[in-house]
Amino acid sequence: MPLSEFELIARYFADLGATRADVPLGIGDDGAVLACPADEELVAVIDTLVAGTHFPAGSSAASIGHRALAVNLSDIAAMGARPAWALLALTLPSVEQRWLAEFARGFGALARRSGVALVGGDTTSGPLSVTVQLLGFVPRGQALRRAGGRAGDALYVSGTPGDAAAGLEIELGAPAVETDATRTLRERFLYPEPRMALGERLRGLASACIDVSDGLLGDLGKLASASGCGAALETGALPLSDALLAACGSERARRLALVGGDDYELLFAVPPAREAALLGALPPQKWHYRRIGALEAQHGVRVLREGAVIEFSHSGYDHFAG
Amino acid sequence: MPLSEFELIARYFADLGATRADVPLGIGDDGAVLACPADEELVAVIDTLVAGTHFPAGSSAASIGHRALAVNLSDIAAMGARPAWALLALTLPSVEQRWLAEFARGFGALARRSGVALVGGDTTSGPLSVTVQLLGFVPRGQALRRAGGRAGDALYVSGTPGDAAAGLEIELGAPAVETDATRTLRERFLYPEPRMALGERLRGLASACIDVSDGLLGDLGKLASASGCGAALETGALPLSDALLAACGSERARRLALVGGDDYELLFAVPPAREAALLGALPPQKWHYRRIGALEAQHGVRVLREGAVIEFSHSGYDHFAG
Repeated sequence: MPLSEFELIARYFADLGATRADVPLGIGDDGAVLACPADEELVAVIDTLVAGTHFPAGSSAASIGHRALAVNLSDIAAMGARPAWALLALTLPSVEQRWLAEFARGFGALARRSGVALVGGDTTSGPLSVTVQLLGFVPRGQALRRAGGRAGDALYVSGTPGDAAAGLEIELGAPAVETDATRTLRERFLYPEPRMALGERLRGLASACIDVSDGLLGDLGKLASASGCGAALETGALPLSDALLAACGSERARRLALVGGDDYELLFAVPPAREAALLGALPPQKWHYRRIGALEAQHGVRVLREGAVIEFSHSGYDHFAG
Repeated sequence: MPLSEFELIARYFADLGATRADVPLGIGDDGAVLACPADEELVAVIDTLVAGTHFPAGSSAASIGHRALAVNLSDIAAMGARPAWALLALTLPSVEQRWLAEFARGFGALARRSGVALVGGDTTSGPLSVTVQLLGFVPRGQALRRAGGRAGDALYVSGTPGDAAAGLEIELGAPAVETDATRTLRERFLYPEPRMALGERLRGLASACIDVSDGLLGDLGKLASASGCGAALETGALPLSDALLAACGSERARRLALVGGDDYELLFAVPPAREAALLGALPPQKWHYRRIGALEAQHGVRVLREGAVIEFSHSGYDHFAG
């Protein structure tokens, strides 16, 4: 890529995101210099979106910019941390001003809203791909982990899983009549809202937490396995959105909620002794989460319908995939 | 990518790199938890290598692993920082055990040697591309920057620039008779040695520093411009390796040293009052660096041969590229 194109790109990213006092040196040198707060630990996450794998080729650039940051914010939320600084590695087949402006708009709006400063980056030429690396903080020793849950802990999930997977199907499908439901579902795929505030407030309440990105059932399997136990999930308790039910019907809605990806919701475990504190501090109607099951001693994930096992899968994902 | 393939990859990366006490939580959760040292600032860099852009398609996987980390270590060195933690985002067209093992070997050897722990990552399927994000530390307020140089400061470069560009040409060219010289040059491209120890020791001595990755002349232009001045570079002073001279002859060697990329050497400015301290603390014969010119008040980069201007280019790179 000629130097002049790098300069063009640099212009779009120079002022992107929030302005923070803890950035002695931001974009434009060999590295960024950052001032870590005392008494806190750093949380570091990284996630890549590849065209054709994580979003349809031809997706809106604003959505790609938003999602590249959102998927990382969701990981930070799952750790109970608050985000601070992002680095962006952008690989582009060609430099198009309009695409860059839209990408910057999508990334920048979410970054400012989340208090994230863009402190560094790298732009290269090649097949379209976006890697964001995000840094945040958590009070020492208080990060939420996947491990930490125990048999008997209640399991909760935020939001309405399955929406994004249905939205992606609509994006990929033949143009259909757009309804309120299909519009809502597409938005849920294109502009996921990471659960930052919820993640931070779960510190001290949740015993374990994971970001639901690869499908609720698979991610539940990871949380349970990291916690050294199994889990039972009641499909009747799944929070299904009206849009998902309207567009897909209840059977398919339930399936998408269990195995669809790209939700960016939080799945967390809460010990029985802390459930009252959780429900008091974070009223579910306001914070949008629901109890869907419990961790149990028996390994593996059991999927129940009205208390009867309807599926059993050790790893969760493998069984349903395909 | 099916879950089982992710697990395969996870196996290769679980123990990669150095073991560090300041990693309360490493690979395997939604994020890594890291303990920053008090009284130091964090330095963050990110760099992507794309197949076909930054290395020939079909390059040795060990070299790709080494280079993906080395280019980031070089940025950390240019900041005068010491490296600590890396995150790796790897995009692969397919999962091949042998390729992964070789990649891990190249990355891991350099990471262990550099004291870098691999604390997180993301693996996705798509065209081959490697993004490494590296974090390091520097005593508060002491990071080396591109800005900070002044007219009159001497300019030094480490190593023997041009070697890697010649090595890449040999890699890309028709198979020729391998000589000691061509072997040396290819190694310089495939396994660059970032100048970590030199970068750290330049704190308090250099007024400005940059990593030479896009060609000496272009990177000199960036350092001079960030420092608000220009520069004069004497081509007769360029440190040219015996291998480069043997393989390319002196005219072409000089040109490659000026505009060839992938050197990963350090270019730094030193105020006249500190030159004696530099030469005393870091004997050039041992530390392998040489004075090649000086910063000057007049903007732009002047290239001299025996004191006479032979080229003039405002941005350096544009003029020579092509």
